[in-house]
Amino acid sequence: MLLQTSKRLSLSDIIYSASRRANTRIPQYTSYLHRQITTLSALKRLPDTVSDILYKAGNGTLKETSKVTVHGWVRSVRKQKKIAFAQIADGSCDQMIQLVFLDSSIASELKTGVSVRATGDLVITPTRADPCEISISTPIQVIGDYAIPDEAYPLQKKFMTQEFLRREHPAQRFRTRVNANILRLRSLTVSCLSEFFSESGFTQTHPPLITSSDCEGAGEVFSISSSIDNAETKFFGQDSYLTVSTQLHLEALMMGLSRVWTLTPAFRAEESATSRHLSEFWMLEAEVAFTEELEHIMSIVEQMIRFSVRKMKDAGALEQIVKLKEMLEKQKLAVNEGEDDEETVTAAQVITRWNSFIANDQPWMRITYAEAISVLQAAVADRQVEFIHAVEDGESLKSEHEKWLAGNYARGPIFITQYPSHMKPFYMLPTPNTSGQTVECFDLLVPDMGELVGGSLREHDFARLNSAIELSGMDTSALSWYLELRKWGTVPHGGFGMGFERLICYLGGVYNIREAIAFPRWIDHCAC
Amino acid sequence: MLLQTSKRLSLSDIIYSASRRANTRIPQYTSYLHRQITTLSALKRLPDTVSDILYKAGNGTLKETSKVTVHGWVRSVRKQKKIAFAQIADGSCDQMIQLVFLDSSIASELKTGVSVRATGDLVITPTRADPCEISISTPIQVIGDYAIPDEAYPLQKKFMTQEFLRREHPAQRFRTRVNANILRLRSLTVSCLSEFFSESGFTQTHPPLITSSDCEGAGEVFSISSSIDNAETKFFGQDSYLTVSTQLHLEALMMGLSRVWTLTPAFRAEESATSRHLSEFWMLEAEVAFTEELEHIMSIVEQMIRFSVRKMKDAGALEQIVKLKEMLEKQKLAVNEGEDDEETVTAAQVITRWNSFIANDQPWMRITYAEAISVLQAAVADRQVEFIHAVEDGESLKSEHEKWLAGNYARGPIFITQYPSHMKPFYMLPTPNTSGQTVECFDLLVPDMGELVGGSLREHDFARLNSAIELSGMDTSALSWYLELRKWGTVPHGGFGMGFERLICYLGGVYNIREAIAFPRWIDHCAC
Repeated sequence: MLLQTSKRLSLSDIIYSASRRANTRIPQYTSYLHRQITTLSALKRLPDTVSDILYKAGNGTLKETSKVTVHGWVRSVRKQKKIAFAQIADGSCDQMIQLVFLDSSIASELKTGVSVRATGDLVITPTRADPCEISISTPIQVIGDYAIPDEAYPLQKKFMTQEFLRREHPAQRFRTRVNANILRLRSLTVSCLSEFFSESGFTQTHPPLITSSDCEGAGEVFSISSSIDNAETKFFGQDSYLTVSTQLHLEALMMGLSRVWTLTPAFRAEESATSRHLSEFWMLEAEVAFTEELEHIMSIVEQMIRFSVRKMKDAGALEQIVKLKEMLEKQKLAVNEGEDDEETVTAAQVITRWNSFIANDQPWMRITYAEAISVLQAAVADRQVEFIHAVEDGESLKSEHEKWLAGNYARGPIFITQYPSHMKPFYMLPTPNTSGQTVECFDLLVPDMGELVGGSLREHDFARLNSAIELSGMDTSALSWYLELRKWGTVPHGGFGMGFERLICYLGGVYNIREAIAFPRWIDHCAC
Repeated sequence: MLLQTSKRLSLSDIIYSASRRANTRIPQYTSYLHRQITTLSALKRLPDTVSDILYKAGNGTLKETSKVTVHGWVRSVRKQKKIAFAQIADGSCDQMIQLVFLDSSIASELKTGVSVRATGDLVITPTRADPCEISISTPIQVIGDYAIPDEAYPLQKKFMTQEFLRREHPAQRFRTRVNANILRLRSLTVSCLSEFFSESGFTQTHPPLITSSDCEGAGEVFSISSSIDNAETKFFGQDSYLTVSTQLHLEALMMGLSRVWTLTPAFRAEESATSRHLSEFWMLEAEVAFTEELEHIMSIVEQMIRFSVRKMKDAGALEQIVKLKEMLEKQKLAVNEGEDDEETVTAAQVITRWNSFIANDQPWMRITYAEAISVLQAAVADRQVEFIHAVEDGESLKSEHEKWLAGNYARGPIFITQYPSHMKPFYMLPTPNTSGQTVECFDLLVPDMGELVGGSLREHDFARLNSAIELSGMDTSALSWYLELRKWGTVPHGGFGMGFERLICYLGGVYNIREAIAFPRWIDHCAC
C-alpha cells in the first residue's frame, strides 16, 4: 500500500519534466560544482562525501563493483531476517546512500545517529531515484557510538516541532534533514547573490558593526562595553553601539567605489517576540552612485532576485524543498507545529513563490503609494476584501494591506513607490518637482509575507540634507561625517536593503524566521 | 627627463611578459567578469562605469568615434593654452579615463574632486597603456561641486599619510586610489575564497555573533546591553557577549553538514593599540568532519590560499598593487608614513609574497614545534641570527622567531605542527599514541608577518573532552551544549581560522592592519 502511494505522481513530478528528473538523480544542490580542488597532487585530498559518491556514480566516474568508502551518520536501519539496510547521510546533500548488508548480523551494532565508516562494493541502481547503493559484506566501523549508553539519540525519525528542537536541542537541530536543508539553502543563496553582484560590477564591502551613533534614531540599539569600562572610561572613548543598518557607512564606501554591496549582521534590541523578529539578523544592502532614477534601483533589485532564484532553481533547490515539504505533508505533520502551527507554508505555495519571481513575460508591477491606497479603497468599496484596519490615505500600509496588494492585486511581487515623506527617514530624496510631500522610495511586497526589500534615492545635496537632519531632531554632531559626504563632489545615488532571513523564509517556505538562521537570538533567548 | 624615466623598465614590466601586459590594458580586476546582468530587457540598465567603458573599448565593442557618456570624479585637471585634459575615475577600477577638451575654456570649471557627467567621442589609443580617451567638444555637466566654495577638496593629489587620512577624513579616505584599491582587493579575495569553498563542497554558514559564553575564557570580550537592562533584567535573560571566535558554533554546524566555513566579524576588547590589533575584524573559519589527520586540514589551508592567490593574480590584482606601490615609491613616499613609517612594504616584497604562495613545485614546508626549536637553536649557535628573546623549548615562539622561520629558514610559508599542549586551548586533540605532551595543531607562518592561520584537530571523545574542560577551569555549564556535540555519533574532525585582514595586509603589502579594513576600531577609536 505504501509503495503504491509513493508511486503516484507527486507535485514535483508534475512541475518537472522526466528529463529534468533524470538529471536530478545526481545531487546538484550543494557543492553543485563538484570538482574538489587540488592545486598540487602531493596535497592530501579529503575523503569523498555522500554527495561526491552519488555524483560520481551518477555520471559514470565510479563503476559497478568499485570499492567505495562512505563516511556519515546512520539515519535509519532496517533489519530483515537475512539482510539489513542502513541509510547513511553526511549533510553534504539531502540525499542518502543505502548500505545493503548481505548478512544482517554485520549490522547488529548500528543505531540511528551513530557515525560510521563503511567500505563496500558499489551497486548502480538505474531504476531508482538514487543512482547507487553500497553492498557490504564485512563488518563496518562505528566511529562514534552513544557516549552514554543509557541516553538514546534524541533526534529519532519521529516528527518533532521546530519549537521543541530549538528549546531542547539548539546545538543538535542541524542534524535533522529540514534544518540542514535550510542551511544549505542559505549557502546557495549567498553564492548566487554574490555572483550577481560580482558580474554587475559591484564591490563587496564590510561596513563596521560597532558604530558610534544610533543611526536611525529609533533607540532600539544594543550598547557595547568592556571590562575596563566604568563611569568615566569607555573602551572606545565614547558610547558605542551595534549597527542597526550599514546604509550610512555604505554611502561613504560608495563615494570611493561607485557600486557597493554588503551582507552583514545587523542588530535590533526589539522587545517583540514574534515569528518575524530577530535581534541578530543578516542584511543585504547596496548603494549605487550616479543615478537619479528610482527605477534604476528597482531594476537592480528585480534583476538580483530573478538571477539568483533562477540559478537556485537550476541547481535543484526548489525541487529539494518541495521533496522535504512532501515528506512532511505525507506524514500529515506541519513543519511549523507548535506556536505557529496554523501558519504552515505548503509545497504548492513555495512553487508559486519561486515561479512568480522568475516569470519572464514582463517586469513586476510598480504602483505609487497613492495608487495603492486607491486600489485598496476600491477593493473594500467593492466588497472584494474586508480588512481589520481601515485603509487611510497618509497612514502606513498595514501588513494585511501589503499582503493583499501582492497576493490578490498583483498576484506576485509588487513595488510600491513614493510614500509620503512623513513616514520615511530623513535621508530620502523628496520627489523632484513637487512640494516634497512624497519621497523617492519603494517597498517590494511579496504574497504571504509583505515587505521583502526597501530602498530609495538619497538626498545628496549638502544644504538640503543639513536641513533634513536638523528637522528630524537627530544629533547633528554624530552625523557630521555623513553630511560631509555631500561636501565635495556629491553624486545622486540610491540603494536598498533586504533582510536575508526574510528571503530565506520566503524561498524556503519557512514561516517562523527563527528557523531561517542557525542560532536565533530574540528577547530572553540566546542559547549556546 | 621625466618621460625618459617612466620609459625605463618597471618592476611590473619585468615580472609580466609583453603579451600579458597587452591583455591588462583591459581592466580585469573588479567586475572582472564584465557582463552586466539583464534578466529582462524591459528593466533599466545602469549607465556604464569607467571599467565598463575601458573594457568595451579594449575588446572592440565600442568603436572609434562612438558617443560615450562617462560618470565619475575628476582626479586631476591639466589646462594648456588651447586644449585641456581631465582624468576621470569612479572607483569601479583603478584606471581612469582621460577627457580631452579641444577648447580649454570648456574645462574652466573643473576642479579635483568634483563629480561630472561627460559625453564625447571615443578615441582609441592603441599605443598607450589605457585603451581609449574621450574627446569633448561641448560643455560637460558638473554634478557635484564643492558645497562650500571656501572649503577646498581635502584629498588633493599630494601625498598624505594613512594615519592623517584616518584621523582627519575617516569617511572620505576611500576616495584615494590606494584605499579604494585595498577595498577592491578585499572584494576579490572574498570572491575567490568563496569559489574555493563552494567548489570543494563546503557549506557557507553564519554562526552567531552574540553568544552567551566567553568561549576562550580570555576575558577580552565585549558585553552587550539594551536600554531595558538593569540590575535584575537582561535583554537575553542572561549575560551576552560579542563572539571572539565562531569555532565552537561552527563545530555544531559541522555535525549537520560535514564541511562548513564562515567569514564573519569577530571582536576582541584588547587594550593593545599596535599595528596588528583590531577590536572588530573579520575571520575566516572552517570545520571538517571525518578526518583523523592534521595533514587534511593543512592541505585545505594550502589549497585554499594557492587557489585564491592564483585566481587573484590572473585577475590582475598583483599587477595593480605593484603599480600603485611604484607610483608611491617614485614619489619617494612611503605608504605607511607616520606612526609606522619605518615599516614600509615594497613592491618587490609583495611580488615575492604572492609568488611564494603559488610556487608549484612542492607543498609548503611542514616541521614540528620540536624541530622548529632545534632549527632556531642551531641557527643561534651557528651565529646565523641573533634574537632579542632566547629560544626556549616549551615556550611560545616569539614573533621574531616566527618571522625568521618563514623568512630565512623556509623562505616562504611554513607550517609548524604539534605544539606543547600547555600552550593551546582545551579543545585540541592530544597527539595520538603519546602521553599527551603535544596536540595535533598547526600555525601557518609567513615571511615578514608570522602567523597567518591556526588550526587543529579537535578532541571528539565525550569523556576526554569533559575532563579537558574541567582541567581548564572553565565554566562547564556554559559549555555543556558544546560537550553534548560528542554525545551521539561524534566524529573525528578539525578546522582552522584565518584573520581576514591579516591576509589582506599580507597580499596588499599593507603594514598597518588599520588600512586593511574600511572603518577600523581599536581602543579609543570608533570614528563614524
